[in-house]
Amino acid sequence: MSIHAVILCGGRGERFWPKSRRNRPKQFIPLYGSRTLIQETSRRIAPLCPVKRQLFVTPVELVPLLRRQVKVPRRNILGEPCGRNTAPAIGLAALTLVRRDPEAVMVVLPADHLITKRPEFLKAVRLAAQLAQENLLVTFGIVPSRPDTNYGYVHYGARIAGSRRLTAHSVVGFREKPDSATAQRYLAEGTYLWNSGMFVWRAATILKALHQFLPEFYLALMRFGKAIGTEREQRALAQLYRRAPVISIDYAVMEKAENIAVVRATFDWDDVGSWLALARHRPMDAAGNVTTGCWFGRETRNCIIDADSGIVATLGVSDLVIVRAGAAVLVAHKTALDGIKRLLEDIASHKAARRLL
Amino acid sequence: MSIHAVILCGGRGERFWPKSRRNRPKQFIPLYGSRTLIQETSRRIAPLCPVKRQLFVTPVELVPLLRRQVKVPRRNILGEPCGRNTAPAIGLAALTLVRRDPEAVMVVLPADHLITKRPEFLKAVRLAAQLAQENLLVTFGIVPSRPDTNYGYVHYGARIAGSRRLTAHSVVGFREKPDSATAQRYLAEGTYLWNSGMFVWRAATILKALHQFLPEFYLALMRFGKAIGTEREQRALAQLYRRAPVISIDYAVMEKAENIAVVRATFDWDDVGSWLALARHRPMDAAGNVTTGCWFGRETRNCIIDADSGIVATLGVSDLVIVRAGAAVLVAHKTALDGIKRLLEDIASHKAARRLL
Repeated sequence: MSIHAVILCGGRGERFWPKSRRNRPKQFIPLYGSRTLIQETSRRIAPLCPVKRQLFVTPVELVPLLRRQVKVPRRNILGEPCGRNTAPAIGLAALTLVRRDPEAVMVVLPADHLITKRPEFLKAVRLAAQLAQENLLVTFGIVPSRPDTNYGYVHYGARIAGSRRLTAHSVVGFREKPDSATAQRYLAEGTYLWNSGMFVWRAATILKALHQFLPEFYLALMRFGKAIGTEREQRALAQLYRRAPVISIDYAVMEKAENIAVVRATFDWDDVGSWLALARHRPMDAAGNVTTGCWFGRETRNCIIDADSGIVATLGVSDLVIVRAGAAVLVAHKTALDGIKRLLEDIASHKAARRLL
Repeated sequence: MSIHAVILCGGRGERFWPKSRRNRPKQFIPLYGSRTLIQETSRRIAPLCPVKRQLFVTPVELVPLLRRQVKVPRRNILGEPCGRNTAPAIGLAALTLVRRDPEAVMVVLPADHLITKRPEFLKAVRLAAQLAQENLLVTFGIVPSRPDTNYGYVHYGARIAGSRRLTAHSVVGFREKPDSATAQRYLAEGTYLWNSGMFVWRAATILKALHQFLPEFYLALMRFGKAIGTEREQRALAQLYRRAPVISIDYAVMEKAENIAVVRATFDWDDVGSWLALARHRPMDAAGNVTTGCWFGRETRNCIIDADSGIVATLGVSDLVIVRAGAAVLVAHKTALDGIKRLLEDIASHKAARRLL
């Protein structure tokens, strides 16, 4: 077998506006350290899948930006005409891989995750790849460190493979984002893991599953396959996506399939879903402030401040997120960050401001 | 007699940083409306003192900026080598005027005041100019609208001139900035006025007062007078200022002189000392926000927002002052604005950031 990485570079990263913009979403910016999240993801899997066996799925308009960030041949990039969540992206990648290598095992990695323990990560992927050989759909579960209500959970059962430290398990079931009490219980029971959105399977296995659970899309995908390499390819791709369902692979396949397994991750993981999450990975001063760029403050506590250039000065404020990026400034209370999507709708409806999205 | 305006354009306007900068202090920016405060002050007094009888006292490095804002001959601008508060500036202006016109009456106007009722203002200046003919030092007192602790007060006595509506009075005494209880009492008693910092007197009268109350500076001023028009003039001016006391005309003269009077102003007045003061003169939305520039907000209340370009977006915040100006952003709680001076000291000690002061 040979293992291929499929790096999913979709997602708009609205929660990181204005640092993240439509033409430069979160995964394309160096949110943590000097490399972008995409570059980090590519480097992390490279010992198992060198860049020539990495396939990137990205919005078609961002292909040029991606090529400036990662040195890959154009054939290793699949440009999506529009966003359709993960199931269509993974289907397209599986079809592409299976045509190049019928035995391909694919490691699906969202480009915006933060993992620092690379050796542990690679060991877990190797274990998952072994299970994938047995036609299992393997997901990675993260041991919860807090009763987080923003993640889906995987209820796991008996050990089916692995050593004492690194284990793979059967799956009792997938659970939607829980309420607070349920999340507490999951944490206490110790048999629930965060559903990470990373998967390993044979390309052929996931295509078979799509055939079973998403038959219309599967047939459309096969029709598109006939156009690959012809002059019709781009038009056929646009047609495929126009009609593709907007659905995640979790919902479309994982929650319904029987042949699933979960690897209990021994590595650290964060999907860096918000400024609050990101702040967990940046150094904090004695007053609880997490700052990047040139900042001056007095009587300032528990703030997250990110300045791309110039300076940000604060006086007598606390629990704020302050982001200066290009021509835009965001000042938000930490507890109000969920409002960002509606705020961006307001901005989108304003002709002169829209260019700053 | 002919009446000359002396427009004092000193002051650093630190309280309006970052909109106000060292090289463009508050009085040089359009804080209110489309004209700068200096331009407003010049226009306000113009019906009594056309521009050719307006004398501007300004930091010497700001003379070019001033000349772009007000069309006056160079001889109508006195460039101060350094700031020494109002007594030296007024002494220098009086000397300049008395040499050009021994009978000159001078109207001293700080350039950063906001007055909208121009006819009332001009009537009050005319009344004061009549009193100045009697060798009185005339100040303007503003009827307090609130128990403000940020102003000095003038305790006034019997009416000495004026009509029923517009009156001039003897002065019982000047009072320093009061505590809150005292300010309440002043407001209740009705015989106290805010000391506005605007004055009218004959140039010869104020020079005589400086001779009496600030004799060393007066003698230095006379020595400088001999250098005017010679090649030594600039050097002599530098010498005068190097040794000049840093003292206000109120403290140096008004609180000590006997020949004083106060005109009880019938015009509106604000010295626009802070963002909170400025906000009183800008329109407010239903949520209590006062905004200038491109702003988008949700759950935002009682904020003052000023964006020179780009956009400022806010979420779930209240009682903040947010100013975006050039490369700097300030986010301050309304109650913490007094900390700005110390904050600017922090910035001044940082080599790369200093240029943004």
